[in-house]
Amino acid sequence: MTTTAPLNKACDLILFGTKGDLARRKLLPALYQLEKSGLLHAESKVIGVARDELDLDGYKELVETNLQKFIKEPLDAEVLARLKAKLQYVQVDLTKEDHYKALKAVTDPKKRIPVSYFATAPSLFGNICKGLSIAGLSAEPARVVLEKPIGHDLASSKVINDEVAKYFGECQIYRIDHYLGKETVLNLLALRFANSIFAANWDHNAIDHVQITVAEEVGVEGRWGYYDDAGQMRDMVQNHLLQVLSLIAMEPPARLDADSIRDEKLKVLKALRPINVANVQEKTVRGQYAGGYVTGTPVPGYLDEEDARPNSKTETFVAIKVDIDNWRWAGVPFYLRTGKRMPKKMSELVICFKPQPHNIFFETYKQLPANKLIIRLQPDEGVEIQIMNKIPGLGESMQLQQTKLDLSFDETFKSQRIADAYERLLLEAMLGNQYLFVRRDEVEQAWKWVDGILDAWKVTNEPPKPYQAGTWGPVAAISLLAREDRNWDE
Amino acid sequence: MTTTAPLNKACDLILFGTKGDLARRKLLPALYQLEKSGLLHAESKVIGVARDELDLDGYKELVETNLQKFIKEPLDAEVLARLKAKLQYVQVDLTKEDHYKALKAVTDPKKRIPVSYFATAPSLFGNICKGLSIAGLSAEPARVVLEKPIGHDLASSKVINDEVAKYFGECQIYRIDHYLGKETVLNLLALRFANSIFAANWDHNAIDHVQITVAEEVGVEGRWGYYDDAGQMRDMVQNHLLQVLSLIAMEPPARLDADSIRDEKLKVLKALRPINVANVQEKTVRGQYAGGYVTGTPVPGYLDEEDARPNSKTETFVAIKVDIDNWRWAGVPFYLRTGKRMPKKMSELVICFKPQPHNIFFETYKQLPANKLIIRLQPDEGVEIQIMNKIPGLGESMQLQQTKLDLSFDETFKSQRIADAYERLLLEAMLGNQYLFVRRDEVEQAWKWVDGILDAWKVTNEPPKPYQAGTWGPVAAISLLAREDRNWDE
Repeated sequence: MTTTAPLNKACDLILFGTKGDLARRKLLPALYQLEKSGLLHAESKVIGVARDELDLDGYKELVETNLQKFIKEPLDAEVLARLKAKLQYVQVDLTKEDHYKALKAVTDPKKRIPVSYFATAPSLFGNICKGLSIAGLSAEPARVVLEKPIGHDLASSKVINDEVAKYFGECQIYRIDHYLGKETVLNLLALRFANSIFAANWDHNAIDHVQITVAEEVGVEGRWGYYDDAGQMRDMVQNHLLQVLSLIAMEPPARLDADSIRDEKLKVLKALRPINVANVQEKTVRGQYAGGYVTGTPVPGYLDEEDARPNSKTETFVAIKVDIDNWRWAGVPFYLRTGKRMPKKMSELVICFKPQPHNIFFETYKQLPANKLIIRLQPDEGVEIQIMNKIPGLGESMQLQQTKLDLSFDETFKSQRIADAYERLLLEAMLGNQYLFVRRDEVEQAWKWVDGILDAWKVTNEPPKPYQAGTWGPVAAISLLAREDRNWDE
Repeated sequence: MTTTAPLNKACDLILFGTKGDLARRKLLPALYQLEKSGLLHAESKVIGVARDELDLDGYKELVETNLQKFIKEPLDAEVLARLKAKLQYVQVDLTKEDHYKALKAVTDPKKRIPVSYFATAPSLFGNICKGLSIAGLSAEPARVVLEKPIGHDLASSKVINDEVAKYFGECQIYRIDHYLGKETVLNLLALRFANSIFAANWDHNAIDHVQITVAEEVGVEGRWGYYDDAGQMRDMVQNHLLQVLSLIAMEPPARLDADSIRDEKLKVLKALRPINVANVQEKTVRGQYAGGYVTGTPVPGYLDEEDARPNSKTETFVAIKVDIDNWRWAGVPFYLRTGKRMPKKMSELVICFKPQPHNIFFETYKQLPANKLIIRLQPDEGVEIQIMNKIPGLGESMQLQQTKLDLSFDETFKSQRIADAYERLLLEAMLGNQYLFVRRDEVEQAWKWVDGILDAWKVTNEPPKPYQAGTWGPVAAISLLAREDRNWDE
């Protein structure tokens, strides 16, 4: 946030795992878009690293093929040429320390800041860090960008973080949660803190409850084994949902710098009421999808997927009623739900304001719906507010209607392409702005809370409730709100 | 508001002054539109009353000619035929008691409710009432609709109201202020009372100040003598501006019926801090237009208009800082301004919320503008809210922009014709709904406050400040806000 000249330093962006899924689908396309927008420094280099033997021309071809596949628009030849001119390729077996020296030939820490992106299995993070150190690419201002998952519980996350910390200080470490790179998540900060009508209403006096939904249409996508070790709680709640929750719930930071924001987010995570054996059945719902139909297509149940173990109790759906025990949010539940094989891909944050205490429009509108602020993250990003106003016209004078207003963009921005989260995060990492990255203590605090739930589930040992694929999860997830006279936003 | 079957009673709508300006420009076109919308009861009659000898066909022709002139769209032959079939004409010299008996031939109080519309000089109101009584058209549920001005000060308004009260109870009297019939003024009620995000922020804690502007492009329009006796204070502030002010400022009524609303409006008028000799110079600005240009056309000054008396001190512009001495509005000024020969025709209410106490976006947006709710009455009705959000895009991450959002209408209503205020008010009078009409005590309380200012002006005897036609009034009107670090909305 402190950078006003965004392109003031050239980087050596080193992509570990450049042939992997994330790099191919997200990172390389993001670099293309940054190049297209003129946001890559002219002197920067993009250095692909993988185990395969490949010459530079081969790598350039590989990149081009990928871009053609994953960018929907036709490629701009000039942009492509500029990007290709920045490419380098280095063959490294990540487990072999001496291989890393090869990076020296294409990097120059005196001229360009080394920014190493770890798009690999976390088990290799330690090796990479050591290798970077050997190659002379770890001293400040060098940075490392870490992809999730950082561990599968508190203990394992500490191991990974400790390994990285041997070579890099916290101010050099950029932990990705791509939800933090979404345009509308950032706009949430603008809306909250630049508008007194929201800032003054952002607490238990004005807000009834908050809903956070991250629904996926897909199932395990051929990664049954990997997914089964994690489950929806580790895969989605620990990172994305808790990150978004902490942005919604945090106190206004005094400044917009990385640590002012992350200090406030951490305070929220610390204030989450623990869920344990005593309350886990009341506060959480676990589900696992059975066979069903998603948008009309028959799909198998979780236990009938390829490579499935027959008796897995892994959850593919979680709903949680989260209480935040602090002054601002006392009595305001945050309901989270996330699942696979839902009716549609849909992520949204819903701030449900308190209903009007008294309805003077009773004769024409029996139940006055409360105002809602809806922040949509997927499928199309946007911010809406639901308000009531008068239906224009004569006759019965006060016929009301509920109207959804698009708060997010000016008409002039309607047609503008929304940058992908990875574009923003890559750019911010290269600029050295940490505010959209997760600090170690946040990761650990989130794991601590999540571990409490996972442990409680283990003790109670209840199997997940089955739900038909293509539905909104087990009935219990509906009841979680319904018994408090609330409903999930539709 | 209590009517759910809007067309349950036929009326004899008696138009006194049917050949006058108001009837021709507003009332007859409004009746055509009501007929077109199917909102006139099939059995209702519209009875034109004037002094001229005219047969029914002549009246029908006159009405048609008027409609052709004042309705922009081509007339619908079928609608016109239906309306014409309802017409009657009665020749009455309003000063001759026995003339009124002629009304008996075309009315039938047993079958149709007599609704008499006084579109005449107020000096005739007493005569008309007596005449209606003689013609047997004054007993409940008969109604009378009174046009402004009701007096030119408190004493004279009492005379008129007393004359009417001899024959009609307050529940039979419908005093017009056509601002109350505007779609957006009604939507203001919906927005305020059906949305907790506004209701909870409608006081001195959340609102910094309120602006009410009623700007006219026209000058005196050939009515110099009439206007000079009144001036902008009597002509606009006493009625329109104070009515709108009281709707913005009133406490939430417990119900939406006429007296619940009017009780609350009256309380606001009673809480207006008196302006007198001691504070009139600080709180008010009087102006009088000099020659200038309005939208490029040269126009004469007020004193150079046709029929002008050379030394008139009548104001054609007023700006007032109004304080409301109650719990809700302590410390929240309501700035009013209204004038003739302004740069454009424009009426709007602006609710200016308090600025954010702290600006964390300082680096990209030095001064964070406060949120504004803008209710536009003229030229095109609409409700907007100004909020800040993030400009989408990368680079400097938190570039903010001010966005105006149209709160008023759903996309689906965008193309709908907005009913004229007179359509609504005629309809409501025929339905017997008094909530959009001004009660006697309101009129008198408004005069009482306005008289205080007029008296103080008389004592201080300062001439009005000249302002060039086509500008926003004397500089002092700008200073009225500027010295408190505020600005008129542009």
